[in-house]
Amino acid sequence: MVGGGEGAFIGAVHRIAARLDDCWELVAGALSSDAARAQASAEALGLARSYDDWREMASVEGAREDGIDAVAIVTPNHLHAPVAHAFMEAGIHVICDKPLAVSLAEGEALAKHARDANLVFALTHTYSGYPLARHARELVEAGEIGEVRIVQVEYAQDWLANPVERGGANRQAAWRTDPALAGPAGCLGDIGTHAYQLAAFVSALVPESLAAEMHTFVPGRRVDDHVQAMLRYANGARGMLWASQVASGAENALRLRVYGTTAGLAFDQEEPNVLWFTPQGGEAQRLTRGRVTGAAARHATRVPPGHPEGYLEAFAQLYRDAAAQIHAREAGVAAPPGSRLLTTVDDGVDGLRFIEAVLASSAAGGTWRSIARP
Amino acid sequence: MVGGGEGAFIGAVHRIAARLDDCWELVAGALSSDAARAQASAEALGLARSYDDWREMASVEGAREDGIDAVAIVTPNHLHAPVAHAFMEAGIHVICDKPLAVSLAEGEALAKHARDANLVFALTHTYSGYPLARHARELVEAGEIGEVRIVQVEYAQDWLANPVERGGANRQAAWRTDPALAGPAGCLGDIGTHAYQLAAFVSALVPESLAAEMHTFVPGRRVDDHVQAMLRYANGARGMLWASQVASGAENALRLRVYGTTAGLAFDQEEPNVLWFTPQGGEAQRLTRGRVTGAAARHATRVPPGHPEGYLEAFAQLYRDAAAQIHAREAGVAAPPGSRLLTTVDDGVDGLRFIEAVLASSAAGGTWRSIARP
Amino acid sequence: MVGGGEGAFIGAVHRIAARLDDCWELVAGALSSDAARAQASAEALGLARSYDDWREMASVEGAREDGIDAVAIVTPNHLHAPVAHAFMEAGIHVICDKPLAVSLAEGEALAKHARDANLVFALTHTYSGYPLARHARELVEAGEIGEVRIVQVEYAQDWLANPVERGGANRQAAWRTDPALAGPAGCLGDIGTHAYQLAAFVSALVPESLAAEMHTFVPGRRVDDHVQAMLRYANGARGMLWASQVASGAENALRLRVYGTTAGLAFDQEEPNVLWFTPQGGEAQRLTRGRVTGAAARHATRVPPGHPEGYLEAFAQLYRDAAAQIHAREAGVAAPPGSRLLTTVDDGVDGLRFIEAVLASSAAGGTWRSIARP
Amino acid sequence: MVGGGEGAFIGAVHRIAARLDDCWELVAGALSSDAARAQASAEALGLARSYDDWREMASVEGAREDGIDAVAIVTPNHLHAPVAHAFMEAGIHVICDKPLAVSLAEGEALAKHARDANLVFALTHTYSGYPLARHARELVEAGEIGEVRIVQVEYAQDWLANPVERGGANRQAAWRTDPALAGPAGCLGDIGTHAYQLAAFVSALVPESLAAEMHTFVPGRRVDDHVQAMLRYANGARGMLWASQVASGAENALRLRVYGTTAGLAFDQEEPNVLWFTPQGGEAQRLTRGRVTGAAARHATRVPPGHPEGYLEAFAQLYRDAAAQIHAREAGVAAPPGSRLLTTVDDGVDGLRFIEAVLASSAAGGTWRSIARP
Repeated sequence: MVGGGEGAFIGAVHRIAARLDDCWELVAGALSSDAARAQASAEALGLARSYDDWREMASVEGAREDGIDAVAIVTPNHLHAPVAHAFMEAGIHVICDKPLAVSLAEGEALAKHARDANLVFALTHTYSGYPLARHARELVEAGEIGEVRIVQVEYAQDWLANPVERGGANRQAAWRTDPALAGPAGCLGDIGTHAYQLAAFVSALVPESLAAEMHTFVPGRRVDDHVQAMLRYANGARGMLWASQVASGAENALRLRVYGTTAGLAFDQEEPNVLWFTPQGGEAQRLTRGRVTGAAARHATRVPPGHPEGYLEAFAQLYRDAAAQIHAREAGVAAPPGSRLLTTVDDGVDGLRFIEAVLASSAAGGTWRSIARP
Repeated sequence: MVGGGEGAFIGAVHRIAARLDDCWELVAGALSSDAARAQASAEALGLARSYDDWREMASVEGAREDGIDAVAIVTPNHLHAPVAHAFMEAGIHVICDKPLAVSLAEGEALAKHARDANLVFALTHTYSGYPLARHARELVEAGEIGEVRIVQVEYAQDWLANPVERGGANRQAAWRTDPALAGPAGCLGDIGTHAYQLAAFVSALVPESLAAEMHTFVPGRRVDDHVQAMLRYANGARGMLWASQVASGAENALRLRVYGTTAGLAFDQEEPNVLWFTPQGGEAQRLTRGRVTGAAARHATRVPPGHPEGYLEAFAQLYRDAAAQIHAREAGVAAPPGSRLLTTVDDGVDGLRFIEAVLASSAAGGTWRSIARP
Repeated sequence: MVGGGEGAFIGAVHRIAARLDDCWELVAGALSSDAARAQASAEALGLARSYDDWREMASVEGAREDGIDAVAIVTPNHLHAPVAHAFMEAGIHVICDKPLAVSLAEGEALAKHARDANLVFALTHTYSGYPLARHARELVEAGEIGEVRIVQVEYAQDWLANPVERGGANRQAAWRTDPALAGPAGCLGDIGTHAYQLAAFVSALVPESLAAEMHTFVPGRRVDDHVQAMLRYANGARGMLWASQVASGAENALRLRVYGTTAGLAFDQEEPNVLWFTPQGGEAQRLTRGRVTGAAARHATRVPPGHPEGYLEAFAQLYRDAAAQIHAREAGVAAPPGSRLLTTVDDGVDGLRFIEAVLASSAAGGTWRSIARP
Repeated sequence: MVGGGEGAFIGAVHRIAARLDDCWELVAGALSSDAARAQASAEALGLARSYDDWREMASVEGAREDGIDAVAIVTPNHLHAPVAHAFMEAGIHVICDKPLAVSLAEGEALAKHARDANLVFALTHTYSGYPLARHARELVEAGEIGEVRIVQVEYAQDWLANPVERGGANRQAAWRTDPALAGPAGCLGDIGTHAYQLAAFVSALVPESLAAEMHTFVPGRRVDDHVQAMLRYANGARGMLWASQVASGAENALRLRVYGTTAGLAFDQEEPNVLWFTPQGGEAQRLTRGRVTGAAARHATRVPPGHPEGYLEAFAQLYRDAAAQIHAREAGVAAPPGSRLLTTVDDGVDGLRFIEAVLASSAAGGTWRSIARP
């Protein structure tokens, strides 16, 4: 991993994601451009090999017999291209956070490099990993909505409604609004590209022309914080896209509607367990992650119907709390307060009191029973 | 891990959950009562130590210097108690799937054993691991809804609406409706206990008496598939609980409402990123996982506002697909079809085309631009 | 109309409802037991004939050649029976607010009287007038959900969470919690009967036995403010019903779920334009008022799809504001402030500016146009 | 009323709306350009005075001592202007359906005429009559969302997704897609103007420039069936508007979002009882029609909280069914099948059986009671 040291946001997300399906092990990293922070972060994560510099990491790992299979690049945008080139030169596959680069020319060079070197170059447009986003794409490809006529996509946030990049407390805001680190596209590059990608992913279409309007609402901000565009597609379809980081009240509202000649689709990443499919003139069908039977959704599904995306995290919480309590018990200290809500054998006993009372009441024709507790 | 071999459902969930926060490593298991299946399952998972018998596992692991810290018990219900006792006797902490046991007496013995041996005994009532379920509990404890007056909890599924336990194809249905394996409580033990636990967890109250009605709708089924109960609490509160596995249309609809003297709360595990809080006579507030600031919710939160529970799984999907493509590339074979929707450098390049077109259009006053593609 | 004088709630609702479809004209009334208020209320409504006493009204109207066709009874509950008998004796049809009477004996006598006199006796269980409640009933009757297994109905309000009946300011609360006027059933009679009726209406089933729990949460209140019951049906179906006027946060939450062997239905009177229909194991279908094609729903539908119940009221608001402005204009006085939001010709002109700008921009290839205003 | 004869849609809506609040009585009309249909329609409605020609109606009514106070114009668009001029010349106030006219010049002449003649000219932009649309406007005016930054409005339908104007069966589609009757703006004039008006109404802002794109998706259609535009406002705000009659799956989806510097608002006319208000960085508040306390909403509210817009129509349905049954009873014929779902005294009796059983069960400690029925 390059980037993702202490205080970073997306690095930790990448690490959990990499671990979740047991396909990856994190063994090496150049976690920060600051050598001390890189070292401390690596220790905190129990990393086998820590580097102060990503160039060194690329060459050393590329040369090792047991070198890394792939590098995850989670730096600010301006480093994506140089880091990726360095690792590809070392024959290492790349998993890179979005946006790919800070200019089209940079991006094209990366694509050519990956192609020439026959390396996999994955770009983490997260939202296309949702089972129902994939199902939506599959429905479109299967002709289930007819020919696409209208694409409406939007991505609204409100965390930059005020000049939070000033003062230094918000490091995320600082680099994401600094053109030297984020590139010339602010909101456009940060979330506009997600909106664009999701629309293209699901509709299986890319626009052929556009008219766009970038705007900076917060005085003094050096990049755009709002962008809106109208789109024209080669097949005659029309579309609109807007993305904003000053849309007061919005959390992370990435929403897509695609209307075809025979049906429409709607997906909202804030409710990723649901996909709406509505035939022209007909009733809306609420497709759910667990019940759709398409291959693409199945491929990306881990838990059964009704267990929403997120169920695994709830489950993991219990494992985390149990670990905390066990460590504390072994160490003979008090369990940390955060773990106090772990359900234990005592909850189980009370649940069995309930079961026994129900069995008794029901057996007696539904009469009232008291639930005896010591 | 005891249980959870090939074909089991909850074992895989436990394994992902254990891995997600990097607190646990799975090293040993007695994954099946069938020795061949236990061995095959252990190999598939790359387990360091596989046992044919959980008794042997308990004694060997208890004696090893590097023996396991805790055992995860994911067997059918009737084995929970004997397995847990065996591992506790070996001085090993327990993480056990619910329901705790098949009778109150069994459960009380487990609780006593854990207490006497000073061992942690976690019971995986998953739904109390959701950040917003914990936040709800915290709101109740903080007096934010006043004194609790009404508790309404329900858990509706429909997967047993027909006699799917017959014929042998559905192993889950078979053991869960077999009193010898599941205990005398069918629907009651399987999901009624979850409803009971969540209500107790959030309301911080347990009922003192009840009148209940168990019912078996599907002819020939040997356990209840529907249960309903009225509840009375010591403080005068009233409540109702129902759980059903024949509620046609329901997926996994665990829903809780708690009404206090000054406000009400509603939580639906199928939309776990939302908690409704409504003051008496006032407007509903839609609390979201990322925006609530309570300590309990923060403790159980991994991603920022608007990134729903589930975001990590979408992210993990990209890592899984990338691994598949890299393995294929290394092996010189075609990438598996399931991974074809991985976003790659080419998506990034097209996204940069979009960015450059937007920059150009906007700079020219919002005029139309074509998006050049090779 | 008997009852419904100034300050009453349900009387005004009856009057609007009677007028809406142009089937009724209100010509006579005994609007209050207080003669002065009766007179003043009648004058305010422009009533042709006002009576101080409902007994007199019944006999006079019954004797007139042009006497009323039907009487609307909107008094407190304890008067329903005597008033209805008086008018039926005069040969006049009855439209009576619910609950029918304050005891079963009273109710049976009314039913017998209506039967013997061959008079129509309508009881205004409003919620069965919703197009989608009727459609739900039709679906059940048509076997679309199979045989009914589970009925879950609830009616939650919070307006009596505090002792608002004290002090005299809240006349509604005062009489509805006074057993002498409301009968022995408080919450049970006021809204529990609505829940019961809607469940029976849609499921086409009535329970054959029940176990119930009434409760009074607010100290000093003379009737129940919460009721909960378990239900058994002759066909083996099971059900639950609860109604509460102290469920903090609830407005008027009458909700019904009916689960059959092959599908489930859900209806929420707070979103009366939607009916959920979900097949066992399948995806939820969001049936909407305008798009369902059943005869029962069509019979009760006035506006096209997507125009929700309520559209007519929005429309009526414009007519009301226009009347206010015209009266003011004729009188040479300022229009009342409430009517200031009426849309007028000036809104129309600005809308045409928009249209012309769109036409011009689009004709010029989507270029920007300014919208000229004087 | 001019227009609105048999087979028309919006005329009936106007008549109900006019009647609902008892402010208007319909006494005269030129209901159709076809004399026979005008006559038949007038008879069906029991109109006092029917005219074959609206010019005649204007002059005669203008001259009568008891002539109409106002005319409701519900013709196709191209007649709005000439009819309105004629009635204004006769000194009669105007209530006109939207769009105002088929060109800006026509519209400006109407505005001047109304101003010069000191007549009220109401334009029925229905959606601004919703209590919560008015409340939204009031919140904006009160500064509750800060300064407006972003306006997003859309109006999606799907009823013209196919060429239903052909063949003559669909008269609505025929005239609305005929430029000679509807004017040069199809979708733009029919619903785009509603979207534009609602955005202006709530935001209290009109855009100063736009870039727009009209499109006709259905081959052979003579007017646009889709329009999209980007908007710029004088205060720097940005916005987008789209309207489509080919958005498969959409019923009548008029939705508005307005984001200010401190909060955002969202209103969906398909759920008109709810208005979402979300502070920047905060939790969404679900404002409901009955609970908001602003003067504008109160002015437009007829029923209490939780009784949705639409409640009155459900109520009216019972009155309509009762009328049908009484007419049938008087005539000695069978009641029409549509009225069979009217709730009657028998429903009331069964409800009382329920009440008595609850009273008995509860009094006996919640034991089971059978519900005796004859």
